[in-house]
Amino acid sequence: MREKGAMREIRQQGPYHYVFSRYVDPIATVQPGETVAIYTDDAFESQITRADDKPSEILGAYLNPQTGPVFVEGAEPGDTLAVRIESIEPTRDWAVSVFVPFFGGLTSTKLTRLLQDPLPERVWLYQLADGWLTHNERLRFPWRPFMGTIGTAPELEALSALTPFDHGGNMDVPDVKPGNTVYLPVRVPGALFFTGDCHAGQGQGELCGVALEITARVTLTFDLI
Amino acid sequence: MREKGAMREIRQQGPYHYVFSRYVDPIATVQPGETVAIYTDDAFESQITRADDKPSEILGAYLNPQTGPVFVEGAEPGDTLAVRIESIEPTRDWAVSVFVPFFGGLTSTKLTRLLQDPLPERVWLYQLADGWLTHNERLRFPWRPFMGTIGTAPELEALSALTPFDHGGNMDVPDVKPGNTVYLPVRVPGALFFTGDCHAGQGQGELCGVALEITARVTLTFDLI
Repeated sequence: MREKGAMREIRQQGPYHYVFSRYVDPIATVQPGETVAIYTDDAFESQITRADDKPSEILGAYLNPQTGPVFVEGAEPGDTLAVRIESIEPTRDWAVSVFVPFFGGLTSTKLTRLLQDPLPERVWLYQLADGWLTHNERLRFPWRPFMGTIGTAPELEALSALTPFDHGGNMDVPDVKPGNTVYLPVRVPGALFFTGDCHAGQGQGELCGVALEITARVTLTFDLI
Repeated sequence: MREKGAMREIRQQGPYHYVFSRYVDPIATVQPGETVAIYTDDAFESQITRADDKPSEILGAYLNPQTGPVFVEGAEPGDTLAVRIESIEPTRDWAVSVFVPFFGGLTSTKLTRLLQDPLPERVWLYQLADGWLTHNERLRFPWRPFMGTIGTAPELEALSALTPFDHGGNMDVPDVKPGNTVYLPVRVPGALFFTGDCHAGQGQGELCGVALEITARVTLTFDLI
């Protein structure tokens, strides 16, 4: 038994996962009604840290490392998992954004070609202070954090953490923020909850493929319906 | 050691698989250069057998049972698996086709709605004889068999057997026929080859979601590049 009032903290055990999958072991078990704090890495697994980093050389085929899976005691296929987002706190004082040729919806990709060549790759760093993320005197954004990826394990598939589908996944919806509750399907015993890819801010979609990427401590309350 | 000239026959061990996945155990191992015969079930796991069957009541969420995975000795990530299709033989004398409301590209689906209501569901049976599949005096098709699904296991994902992607999968391309060679990526040790969903015939795409579905014995030669 835990001491009453002591909120548990959940950190990834072993490597992060890059798929939403039932084929991996849970890193923690939570009870319905329990509130826990979960630590997440950024979309690049903290590999991009400097303005002159070359994402095309540093990053591999997989992005969006997931913390999890968290086993929810008593969850059975057919249930609904209600995840209330209590808070999202930064665990460093900066965010990072990149442009990588052939990645994202505003450039040529491996499947689609635009008329012009891709822009050159680039890294932007933003300093977090006083509720703002500041790149320079001309470019800053307010601190409006949310979780880019949140979901449960599919019944049979193991789906890339870059994909949204009916299990949740990489939805990049800014409404996944403190004060709101996300309802997710339970397809496997224990639900097997994953989250990651927190953003300090973003518009109503991740058109260029990235947002203001951060590491975070998210506090969540789990319930079953 | 096998007796020289005795072609091995591979049948599914245990349940069929409905995902292309590295998370399951191989049912057989083949050597590069070896020719084997693999038995496949039809897209409905032989559950639709009569004209008055109701597919909407019989079929579940998963279709296209896969025979496999077959482990190719020596295959390593980065290799290419060359699969030469030597023959496709029917293992019964009939094919089946269905129309299920909300399934396929020519009807309203759960995600898209057409202006009219879906047509009623229906089952068509075709008798195979003398190189033709005959439904009635007015409707018959020539025997032009091919494999609807063929592929290898993805590196991390487990992908539905209803999906095509860069591992192969549910491509439904009629060129996957005897005399041709399909080149597939190797993402995991042993490649983990799956196949199924053989068709007695189809146009250049499976627009309505089904073709002339058959059970089959496919003879394949595996090579590594």
